[in-house]
Amino acid sequence: MNDVQSLAGLIHKHRDEDHARIVALIEPLPDADIAEVMNAVPSLEEAAEVLELLPVARSIRVCDQPTLLRRDALLEQVPSELGAQLLNGMASDQRSALVRHMSSHGCRQLMPLLTHEARVEVEQQLQYPDGTAGDLMTTEFVQLSPAVTVSEALSYIREVARDRETIYACYIVDPQNGHLLGAVSLRDLVMADPAEQVSKVMRPNPVTVGVRDSRKTVVQKISKYNLLAVPVLESDGRIVGFVTVDDAIDAMIDEQTDTVLRMGGVEAGALDDPYMATPWPTLVKKRAAWLVLLFLGEMLTATAMGHFEGEIEKAVVLALFVPLIISSGGNSGSQATSLLIRALALSEVRLFDWLRVLGRELLSGLSLGLILGTIGVLRISLWQGLGWYDYGPHWLLVAWTVGLSLVGIVLWGSISGAMLPFILKRLGLDPATSSAPFVATLVDVTGLIIYFGVAQVVLRGTLL
Amino acid sequence: MNDVQSLAGLIHKHRDEDHARIVALIEPLPDADIAEVMNAVPSLEEAAEVLELLPVARSIRVCDQPTLLRRDALLEQVPSELGAQLLNGMASDQRSALVRHMSSHGCRQLMPLLTHEARVEVEQQLQYPDGTAGDLMTTEFVQLSPAVTVSEALSYIREVARDRETIYACYIVDPQNGHLLGAVSLRDLVMADPAEQVSKVMRPNPVTVGVRDSRKTVVQKISKYNLLAVPVLESDGRIVGFVTVDDAIDAMIDEQTDTVLRMGGVEAGALDDPYMATPWPTLVKKRAAWLVLLFLGEMLTATAMGHFEGEIEKAVVLALFVPLIISSGGNSGSQATSLLIRALALSEVRLFDWLRVLGRELLSGLSLGLILGTIGVLRISLWQGLGWYDYGPHWLLVAWTVGLSLVGIVLWGSISGAMLPFILKRLGLDPATSSAPFVATLVDVTGLIIYFGVAQVVLRGTLL
Repeated sequence: MNDVQSLAGLIHKHRDEDHARIVALIEPLPDADIAEVMNAVPSLEEAAEVLELLPVARSIRVCDQPTLLRRDALLEQVPSELGAQLLNGMASDQRSALVRHMSSHGCRQLMPLLTHEARVEVEQQLQYPDGTAGDLMTTEFVQLSPAVTVSEALSYIREVARDRETIYACYIVDPQNGHLLGAVSLRDLVMADPAEQVSKVMRPNPVTVGVRDSRKTVVQKISKYNLLAVPVLESDGRIVGFVTVDDAIDAMIDEQTDTVLRMGGVEAGALDDPYMATPWPTLVKKRAAWLVLLFLGEMLTATAMGHFEGEIEKAVVLALFVPLIISSGGNSGSQATSLLIRALALSEVRLFDWLRVLGRELLSGLSLGLILGTIGVLRISLWQGLGWYDYGPHWLLVAWTVGLSLVGIVLWGSISGAMLPFILKRLGLDPATSSAPFVATLVDVTGLIIYFGVAQVVLRGTLL
Repeated sequence: MNDVQSLAGLIHKHRDEDHARIVALIEPLPDADIAEVMNAVPSLEEAAEVLELLPVARSIRVCDQPTLLRRDALLEQVPSELGAQLLNGMASDQRSALVRHMSSHGCRQLMPLLTHEARVEVEQQLQYPDGTAGDLMTTEFVQLSPAVTVSEALSYIREVARDRETIYACYIVDPQNGHLLGAVSLRDLVMADPAEQVSKVMRPNPVTVGVRDSRKTVVQKISKYNLLAVPVLESDGRIVGFVTVDDAIDAMIDEQTDTVLRMGGVEAGALDDPYMATPWPTLVKKRAAWLVLLFLGEMLTATAMGHFEGEIEKAVVLALFVPLIISSGGNSGSQATSLLIRALALSEVRLFDWLRVLGRELLSGLSLGLILGTIGVLRISLWQGLGWYDYGPHWLLVAWTVGLSLVGIVLWGSISGAMLPFILKRLGLDPATSSAPFVATLVDVTGLIIYFGVAQVVLRGTLL
């Protein structure tokens, strides 16, 4: 990481004089590292200069790195002839991703640079919605006719395979209708008798995805079946491209960080741009929506508390434990939610298991509630006994109120936390979508009702 | 998914009569699907029967699926001769993973079944701690001497490559000292002149990992450099194995679900077993630790509230907004935390950026606080104005107290939420480790102090 910073610093220092030195430093690095150095140099101009200094074939590979930031701005920055070479040389999936997220200004600048062929490819791929298999796929794959022999296939591959995508798989396609008949890996071809027909060597009925399947489905199939690539079929059964395992990994990382954001209550997919590159007013806008929504939900706690103002007035001591009680409900709820988000994601638990889960959470929630309730009663008794705080003459009843409420609230938090992912999934939503903050709000309001309800029963005739 | 259930049902129904029928249903499925059906049948005996009915080579591939549950119990369940065949036939990484997580009973039953060679392999791999590259790697890779020609290499591969691991990469190793010289893919070999030496064709200085590097490092390298496999080196530079992209994907899924659990406040790595397979008392034990820890932290809120009992007694109306205020602090804190966990994970932000992040969060937190504070003031004024609730003669001052406190608390929540991941990372801990629940507890206590502090200033001379 520090190497990246110091290289970026060197580029900044030597930019006007020592181009050969910069190239000598940069060229031995892997493509992904060059992208990282370009992300770290202070100005766009300097990053663009790296693209100008490297051999074109190398710059194309650097532009193919999905980790390279500001790709569209960089392509606008370089001389337009080089921009055209880079854009047309890029892998089709990276080019479409770039065009998809381009500013309208970038679009006007760069689209005219595309060759006819590349433009048709991009337009074809842009028909598919963002985040689908059609969006992720690359359309550059090796097609073989079932009639060719293994040795013919190998020499065809030697001839046409201009990039490394062939390493993943070659597809046997029916020349009549474009339907996928099977897949062969290079390994299958190398191992096979060269005189054999590829239709004898291929693996029939490969696992496929539809062009409109979600990113999630693609990732699940690739990971479940340990695939290096999965072919993408149009609705009429024609093969139109394939998604490779490294695209799937990139998609997984996106999914993963989206999950982190969602669990923290930030709008899903809100931040396409890096944290530092997002102007802070945009950051505020993206965060405010959720925060306000949760705030409006939490306002119900003020309403609920209002109903119990009389009780609080008579027994102010009750107010002291309000934060402790509602946070315990929230914590047990988000524990249960995250356990079940995980279990549903790994298919350890399915929708129809909800009743068994409910049973387990009843037991777990009750036990956890008894543990916290006991600690709560002990805490109040101890403080009172040691004279650290005076909870009044009815302190033991107060302790019982807190203890019993904790049992009820932790139980309720566990149950509602565990059921929410089922409900979201049943409604066709992603269970990870903001479950945790929702549970917290729900449990806060109901927690107050439980607490003051218990107080009314336990303290009737004494404090209330 | 429903197919899995119905197949599992059919196996259950026909187990005693119609073995040919079961085989006919099961055999055409991909290995991963057979594993899934075996997970779904009601009893271990029935799942073991599937392994007995399939051809041995197929059963071995099914046992190689990391998604197959109860692998050790299954291998104990089948006749011991078959158990030995399956265990010795499995891929070395899967076998080590199995042995690593075996019960002591399973260990006694299965270890004697291992061949000498397999036992040496397992013992070698078990020296490396759980979750390191040495644990994830497979030791079955194709080694080539730098002196052989491309055509010699290809015929060697045809001869020895018993499984599909060769599809990922072959490694050129110095015969003197076992050091890694370079890597070639099958594609490189197919494309090259058959008479060329492999040392001319290989890619020198491949990206590598150390045998004790963490799972996370391995995944990061594979995803950053778009690798299909990464070679694993011992500290003396010898190559001892390699980790393939599909092992990396499995590791990513583990990491991802661990993150979900940690953010929900469940002990990291606590649940190796599926949710449903974990007895509920175990589930309670794993959850109780965190819940109790947070509870003890939240007890400070009762202490803090105790300090303000006098204020609450004089102005009970203040108590009504306590849950609203502390939850707003918690929500803004966990938003900021998840944003920065993501930014740090994607290397968009680095440790030394903390001061710039602090500046951004000051602005964002202040703006978000002003938004929520304004809504708070409007809410109280509206309820008062419409006569829905009577906050007393000094309702406007109460509204100002709530509004100003919200500004302070949301600001404080954003700042502390954003800084905690930096602190955890600086201490060498994973920023995702339970940041969110920690922030919530911290912000709850300080939030109360801010709220009552503001109240003392604003309401002095009127309510207080």
